Amino acid sequence: MVSSVKMDETKLVKSWDKKHLLGIRELSKDEIDIILDQARAFKEVLTRPVPKVPTLRGKTIASLFFESSTRTKLSFSLAAKRLSADSISLSSSSSSILKGESLIDTARNIRAMNVDIIIIRHSSSGVPYILSKVVDCSIVNAGDGTHEHPTQALLDIFTIKEHKDNIENLKVSIIGDIAHSRVARSNIWGLTKLGAKVTVCGPATLIPPKIEQMGVKVVYDIDEALEEADVVNVLRIQLERQQEGLFPSLREYTRFFGINKERLRKAKPGLLIMHPGPVNRGVELSQEVADMKKSNNMPYSVILDQVTNGIAVRMSVLYLVSICKSENGR
Amino acid sequence: MVSSVKMDETKLVKSWDKKHLLGIRELSKDEIDIILDQARAFKEVLTRPVPKVPTLRGKTIASLFFESSTRTKLSFSLAAKRLSADSISLSSSSSSILKGESLIDTARNIRAMNVDIIIIRHSSSGVPYILSKVVDCSIVNAGDGTHEHPTQALLDIFTIKEHKDNIENLKVSIIGDIAHSRVARSNIWGLTKLGAKVTVCGPATLIPPKIEQMGVKVVYDIDEALEEADVVNVLRIQLERQQEGLFPSLREYTRFFGINKERLRKAKPGLLIMHPGPVNRGVELSQEVADMKKSNNMPYSVILDQVTNGIAVRMSVLYLVSICKSENGR
Amino acid sequence: MVSSVKMDETKLVKSWDKKHLLGIRELSKDEIDIILDQARAFKEVLTRPVPKVPTLRGKTIASLFFESSTRTKLSFSLAAKRLSADSISLSSSSSSILKGESLIDTARNIRAMNVDIIIIRHSSSGVPYILSKVVDCSIVNAGDGTHEHPTQALLDIFTIKEHKDNIENLKVSIIGDIAHSRVARSNIWGLTKLGAKVTVCGPATLIPPKIEQMGVKVVYDIDEALEEADVVNVLRIQLERQQEGLFPSLREYTRFFGINKERLRKAKPGLLIMHPGPVNRGVELSQEVADMKKSNNMPYSVILDQVTNGIAVRMSVLYLVSICKSENGR
Repeated sequence: MVSSVKMDETKLVKSWDKKHLLGIRELSKDEIDIILDQARAFKEVLTRPVPKVPTLRGKTIASLFFESSTRTKLSFSLAAKRLSADSISLSSSSSSILKGESLIDTARNIRAMNVDIIIIRHSSSGVPYILSKVVDCSIVNAGDGTHEHPTQALLDIFTIKEHKDNIENLKVSIIGDIAHSRVARSNIWGLTKLGAKVTVCGPATLIPPKIEQMGVKVVYDIDEALEEADVVNVLRIQLERQQEGLFPSLREYTRFFGINKERLRKAKPGLLIMHPGPVNRGVELSQEVADMKKSNNMPYSVILDQVTNGIAVRMSVLYLVSICKSENGR
Repeated sequence: MVSSVKMDETKLVKSWDKKHLLGIRELSKDEIDIILDQARAFKEVLTRPVPKVPTLRGKTIASLFFESSTRTKLSFSLAAKRLSADSISLSSSSSSILKGESLIDTARNIRAMNVDIIIIRHSSSGVPYILSKVVDCSIVNAGDGTHEHPTQALLDIFTIKEHKDNIENLKVSIIGDIAHSRVARSNIWGLTKLGAKVTVCGPATLIPPKIEQMGVKVVYDIDEALEEADVVNVLRIQLERQQEGLFPSLREYTRFFGINKERLRKAKPGLLIMHPGPVNRGVELSQEVADMKKSNNMPYSVILDQVTNGIAVRMSVLYLVSICKSENGR
Repeated sequence: MVSSVKMDETKLVKSWDKKHLLGIRELSKDEIDIILDQARAFKEVLTRPVPKVPTLRGKTIASLFFESSTRTKLSFSLAAKRLSADSISLSSSSSSILKGESLIDTARNIRAMNVDIIIIRHSSSGVPYILSKVVDCSIVNAGDGTHEHPTQALLDIFTIKEHKDNIENLKVSIIGDIAHSRVARSNIWGLTKLGAKVTVCGPATLIPPKIEQMGVKVVYDIDEALEEADVVNVLRIQLERQQEGLFPSLREYTRFFGINKERLRKAKPGLLIMHPGPVNRGVELSQEVADMKKSNNMPYSVILDQVTNGIAVRMSVLYLVSICKSENGR
C-alpha cells in the first residue's frame, strides 16, 4: 500500500523517529524534509480519480478541538479520510469537560478506546506536550495557545517550495501580530532551520521583546519589509486584540500595515503572498491583493494553494507519527 | 457501477447538462423527469441488503447548513453514504463565519480542499446562486430563504408519481403560508412544468400578491381547496409568524385552515395528504389525519413515504450534478 | 463474516430473541451471558491490526443523544464503525425538537430513512420503551433518566468477569448516590441475576427507600462496605445534587464516603475498583486510588479497562439486536 505512493519506505522508517508532532522547534532540518517529501507523494494521490490510500486503514484518529476552527479541523478530517483512517471527534461544548473532568482524564479515556492518534487544539500553550507525557498514543498539535501551530508552518513551507527553487537564503517577511501568533512562531522555527532569512514586521506593541534571539530581523516599516521579500506571510489580525489596547484602530492598522496594490509597487517580481486565513479583507490585505493571480512577474497570492496543500501535509504528518508508534521513537 | 442501478447511462449523460441544482425554476420538464427516473433506480438500491452503490466513490461532498435542520441534513448525509461519497459538514456555530470570514471565502476555502459538491442551506434567498458563480464545484440548494427548496419539491413530486398515474392535469392544492414558503414555490414551479393544476389556499395575509402569475389558482376557502384536490400538500405553519401579526392566533388558523377528518368528508377518494414536516400536530393537520393509512378509497397520508423517498431523490441529484462536472454543463 | 469472530451462530440466533435493549431488568441470566460471550469474541477483533468486521455492513444506526455525553456516545460510535455500520447522529441542539416536533415524530422520521437501530439517551425515564412501541426498528437504551443504563452495567459485569473467576456469590459494593443513579439500578439488576451479593452504600438521603426489595443489602458505613467487598463500584457524585440539599458539602461527602488509600487498608486482596466515569478526583476517589495499578494482592483500579471493554460490549449489543430484527423477536 505504501509502495502505491512511491517512496523508499525502509529509508523513511529508519530515519523517522518522532511519535508526536508537538512543534517545529523539536524537528531537525532532515525531519522537516521527510515530512515535506512525504507530503509531495500524498499530493499526487489527491489528484487521482479516487484520492485515497489504505495507508491508515484500521487506525483510529480522535480530534479534540477546544477552540473554534473551520479549516484546520476540516483539513485534518479530510486527511484522515484520504488515508482510510477511522475518526471520532470531540469539541468543547459536547464534552465531559462540561462535567468537570480534566483534559488529561478525557485524553486517557479516549486512548482507552484504542485510539492511535489524538489531534489537539487548545487555547493553552503546552497542552499537546502534557498529553504526550500522560497518554501512550501519538499526539499531533493542531495549535496550542500562542505557542506553535506546526502543521500550518509545514504547509506554508510546502507551498513556498512549490513556487521557489530554494528555501536557503530566501527572504520571508512575516507581517502582523507577531507577539500572539503561533503561526509566526512555527514559521520562524521552520524557515530558519531550512536556512531562510526571516524578517518580522508589525506595530511595536505586537512585536515580542528579544524576538531577534529566534534568528529573525525586526523592521517596523511595512514598505521595508515588502521591498526585500521573496515571500510575505501576512497574519490575521485578531480583532479582539484591539480592545486590549495593543493597536489604536483597525483603520490605523490598515493604513500602516495593510497590504494593497499601491504598496506592492516596489515588491520583487514574483513575490509570493501568503495568509493562514481567514483573511480580514480590507484590513491586513486589500480585496485585490488577496485574490491576485499569477501573471508575468507580478506578486501573486497562493492563499488557496495553502489550503489545498494543508491536506497533503497533514496526511504526511498522520502517516509519519503512526509508523513511529510501532517503533522505538520518543 | 452505474450499470448496477439499471439505466441507460449514455443517454442520460448526453441529455443532462446541469452542474448545479439551484432551483426547480431553471429545470425543464425533461430534466425533472431525468431526476425522478434516476431516483427510481436508486430507490431500488435502498431495498437491497447492503443499500449502497460505489457511484460517487472518491468524491467529496461538503454540507454547509446555516439554518437548523434535521431531516434535510440527515437525508443528504445518508444519500451521500449510500453513494459511497466522503462527506464533511460545517454548521454555522462551528464555522469561521464566527471569525468574520465571508460565506464566499468559506466556500472558496472548502472548494480548495478538493470538494466536489457543496450542499448549502441558508436563510438568505440567492446564496446558492451566488456560490455557483464564485466556486467551480457543483452547488446543491438545500433551501435558501423564501426562494426555493428544490429537493423537497422533487421528493414531493416523486411521491405523487408513486401514487397517481399521471401528473398531467392532476389537481394539487397547497395549503398554508404560501408567501414565506420555499417549499410552495419549488412545488409550484415543478408541478406546473409537469402539467398539474395547482391551487394555493391560505389566509389572505399569507398569499403573495400576483401569485396567479406563477400559473396557480388562489382560493381562500379550505373546503373548496380540498373538495377539488387529488393531492393536498399542507405546509408547516411557522409559529414565529404569528408574532408578526400575519394571522390572529393558532386556534383561529386551525379553525379556518386546519385539516381534520370532518373536513375530509367531501374529499375525492384516494386523496393524497402530504406535508414537508415537521408537522405541528393539532394545528395544520389533526393528529388523526397526519397518521391516516391507505384503506379503501379514503384519503391517506404519505408523510413518511416522503421522508423515505427523500434519500433516493437526493442520491439522484448528487449523482447527476457530479456527472456534469466532468462535462461541459453550466 | 460472523464465523470470523468464532461463535456458534446458529445456536446464538436461536436463543436470542430481543429486538431491543431497553434495560437489564428484562434480560434473563442466559441473555446476559450471550451478550458477554459475544462481547468476548468482539474484544478479540479489537486487538487485530485492522480491528473491524463486516458484520453490520449495510445497516444504518442513528444516535439520538438528548443529554450531553462524551464517552458513551464515542463508544457507541466506535462500536458501529468496528462493525462496518453506517451512522448518523442527532443531538438536541441541532434537532427539530427545536421546531417543536415531538420526539416520537422525530424517531418515526428517522426510521422512515431506513434506519435499522436507534440508540437513544434521554433525561426522561421510559423514553426508550415508548420509542420501541411506536417505531419498528431496534431501540438501544444509552441511558434514560434515573431508570437504566444497560450497556454500562454490561461493560461493568464484563470487566468484573475478566478479573474474578465467578460472579456467583461475588460481593459487590456500589457506593454513592444510589437514588438517582441509572448505573446503580442496571448494575443491581444484572449482578443479582448472575448471583452476586450486592451491597449499596451512601448517605441516607441518597439511598432510595425499599431498595432492599431489589435484593441488595444497605449499609451506611463506607468502611463496612469496603471491608467485605470483592468489587467496589464507585458512582460519580453529581455536583448539582448538592444544591438540592441532599448532602451538606462536597468536603463532608468526601470525608464520609470518599475512598482513599487509608480507607483501603482493610480491603480484601485484589479488590477491584470501578467507576463509570468521569471521576471527580479528590471527591469520590482520591487521585491515588483512581490510578492504582495491579500489583501483588493490593486493590487496583480497572476504570480504563471499563472504557476499553465498553466498545466490545456495545458491538455485541448492536449485533444481537440486529439479528433479531429479521426474526420474530419482540
